[in-house]
Amino acid sequence: MLPFIRKDLAELTAYTPHPGGASGESAHSESVLDRLDTNECPYDLPEELKKKLAWTYQQLIETNRYPDGGHAALKEDLAEYVNESLNVPALNKAGLGGVTLPTTAITADNISVGNGSDELIRSILIATCLGGTGSIFVANPTFSMYGIIAQTLGIPVVSVQRKEENFEIDIEAAKKAIAQNQNPPVRAVFVVHPNSPTANALTADEIEWLSDLPEEILVVIDEAYFEFSQNTLADQLHHHPNWIILRTFSKAFRLASMRVGYAIAHPELTATLEKIRLPYNLPSFSQTAAELALAQRQLLLATIPETLSERAKLIAALTQHQKLQVWQSAANFVYLRVKAGESESAEQEHKQIMQQLKEGGTLIRHTGGGLRITVGSPEENQRTVDRIAAILN
Amino acid sequence: MLPFIRKDLAELTAYTPHPGGASGESAHSESVLDRLDTNECPYDLPEELKKKLAWTYQQLIETNRYPDGGHAALKEDLAEYVNESLNVPALNKAGLGGVTLPTTAITADNISVGNGSDELIRSILIATCLGGTGSIFVANPTFSMYGIIAQTLGIPVVSVQRKEENFEIDIEAAKKAIAQNQNPPVRAVFVVHPNSPTANALTADEIEWLSDLPEEILVVIDEAYFEFSQNTLADQLHHHPNWIILRTFSKAFRLASMRVGYAIAHPELTATLEKIRLPYNLPSFSQTAAELALAQRQLLLATIPETLSERAKLIAALTQHQKLQVWQSAANFVYLRVKAGESESAEQEHKQIMQQLKEGGTLIRHTGGGLRITVGSPEENQRTVDRIAAILN
Repeated sequence: MLPFIRKDLAELTAYTPHPGGASGESAHSESVLDRLDTNECPYDLPEELKKKLAWTYQQLIETNRYPDGGHAALKEDLAEYVNESLNVPALNKAGLGGVTLPTTAITADNISVGNGSDELIRSILIATCLGGTGSIFVANPTFSMYGIIAQTLGIPVVSVQRKEENFEIDIEAAKKAIAQNQNPPVRAVFVVHPNSPTANALTADEIEWLSDLPEEILVVIDEAYFEFSQNTLADQLHHHPNWIILRTFSKAFRLASMRVGYAIAHPELTATLEKIRLPYNLPSFSQTAAELALAQRQLLLATIPETLSERAKLIAALTQHQKLQVWQSAANFVYLRVKAGESESAEQEHKQIMQQLKEGGTLIRHTGGGLRITVGSPEENQRTVDRIAAILN
Repeated sequence: MLPFIRKDLAELTAYTPHPGGASGESAHSESVLDRLDTNECPYDLPEELKKKLAWTYQQLIETNRYPDGGHAALKEDLAEYVNESLNVPALNKAGLGGVTLPTTAITADNISVGNGSDELIRSILIATCLGGTGSIFVANPTFSMYGIIAQTLGIPVVSVQRKEENFEIDIEAAKKAIAQNQNPPVRAVFVVHPNSPTANALTADEIEWLSDLPEEILVVIDEAYFEFSQNTLADQLHHHPNWIILRTFSKAFRLASMRVGYAIAHPELTATLEKIRLPYNLPSFSQTAAELALAQRQLLLATIPETLSERAKLIAALTQHQKLQVWQSAANFVYLRVKAGESESAEQEHKQIMQQLKEGGTLIRHTGGGLRITVGSPEENQRTVDRIAAILN
């Protein structure tokens, strides 16, 4: 190891972006792969929107100029979108005109935009836990990037296992873990709502626990799958200056290639994130795409009912297999495990199923001691069902 | 301050992306502003390349899919480009075919690609100095982001002033500062080659000092302006596993809007940077643009002779003013100061000149106790000369 590199980085393993093979490359590179391993929307933007974006690039974006480092227009549009989900009426852009802003309303000051949620996760960790000032808490299985980014920053990760039967957080175990780890104390709790990879939304009990956490602990609620769950805690933010909500354009809005995420929080926290983020963190084309996607949200989100009905069909079909335990889902993916007396053999079977599906042409994710399958197009889902049936029978 | 935010962040000021006004907005928003404050190339990509990029987006990029997280194709192309500048012949892509690779040759393993050089600077700081393990050294005035990003990470910055007459590093002062600051010790030295804002390339003495630094100190050589200086230290990398070179597509390659930077270093160091970087750090469109720019480098870099002759004309014209001290430049910008017995009044005049130029329609940068002016198009440079003459006379 080169002597100027931090010793604790030697053992760190990087996140594997596409375990199934980047850009659909694999043994099946000549055929079309069903990429159901990263919870993307199965559909590209409609052709007319791609055309409009391409035109905007050609006519309006100066390739040679740095992007807008302030994201002012995008933040305004985001505030409007978030308010819509809170049933806050759209504000007259010329001013409030005597209308009293509801206390739940979000403004551009509540928003910070990142190069994907990943950048926001890193900024949050830098803001709260760096230099031995804090550790983070997660309940596994959950989105692995919280722990991975924390490790790159030398931040300790305190974790408990979720309940085996329903993947709820074991609140007593969580309280105990947070109370016992005081050196450094937990400064940030990360939850996904609904959770990845297990697809369950936060319960009333879990939300109550988060509400009761002391103000010295930041609660990060990752709503990456909000558009599928239609279940947000954004209306609670004004009660909780120590809560922050993360959202993304990579899932329902179909912009995974563009890397746009955003945070909704107390203005003092977003101001800190703005200080920490790199000044030109978001390419001009990505900003333009996010603005267009918001303007066309009715069109883009119109495929969600299909995803939800396909999800129900997928769960119903997979549940037919006695061998599989399949959980309900509040997101655009399904989580399942092989029922087995001995967990080691189940994990072995998960690996085999993933591998055989890959050979058949379907990429899924083996994670958290189970299999996570993205809901794709009807044709893809039918192939998933058929291929799993062929493997299991 | 919210209680979960690190106390040392309270006093931190964020980097101001476009001090002159983002996206050319200002009092003169209706007229065209000469944006000579961020060292961009004055020209957008040629229309046929923009068209090709727009076509590539429409036809080949799946907006809904995550980008290639490995940058494999781009890293291959970058290695070839770097080798070109080292006079290493292009390798047969099918393999070396018995040819012995010169020891100076760069391969994809020597490359790591970032969301602008900014992301690489942050990764380098995380790799070397986090958690009280190291501080960084800079010689001011220099690119302010090294210090700003270090501060966001709680990393101490050790600095000395450059020599007033020629902005060379005071090597004795540097040695002394590094020797005296051992708690934590200096783990990374940052230099720009040529320096920003002062436009001077590293001298033989400075390079010798960098060569003699112990292997526990990483030397970061930022060659953001390499295409203008044609002066690189990449051929020395194989002698120095503790050197890393940064480059960018934001200047001569005209891709500032895209955010693409890259590092060239020992494979063990690039592997560490790859671990630290966010897995999908670069949008698909930005990767495609960088690959296209490399393929079309002869076309894109053909404007450099104009920039260099315009730079000479700009320096000659500004030097006419007795009141100004204007330095030679190895980059695409010019640095100058008002000669004054008393430095406070010079700084006051710098502010005034910058403000009056802005009112006249030219944005420049007031930094490091002087004025930095980007070399623009011939028309822009003529207006710069005329406007400064009007202000001073």
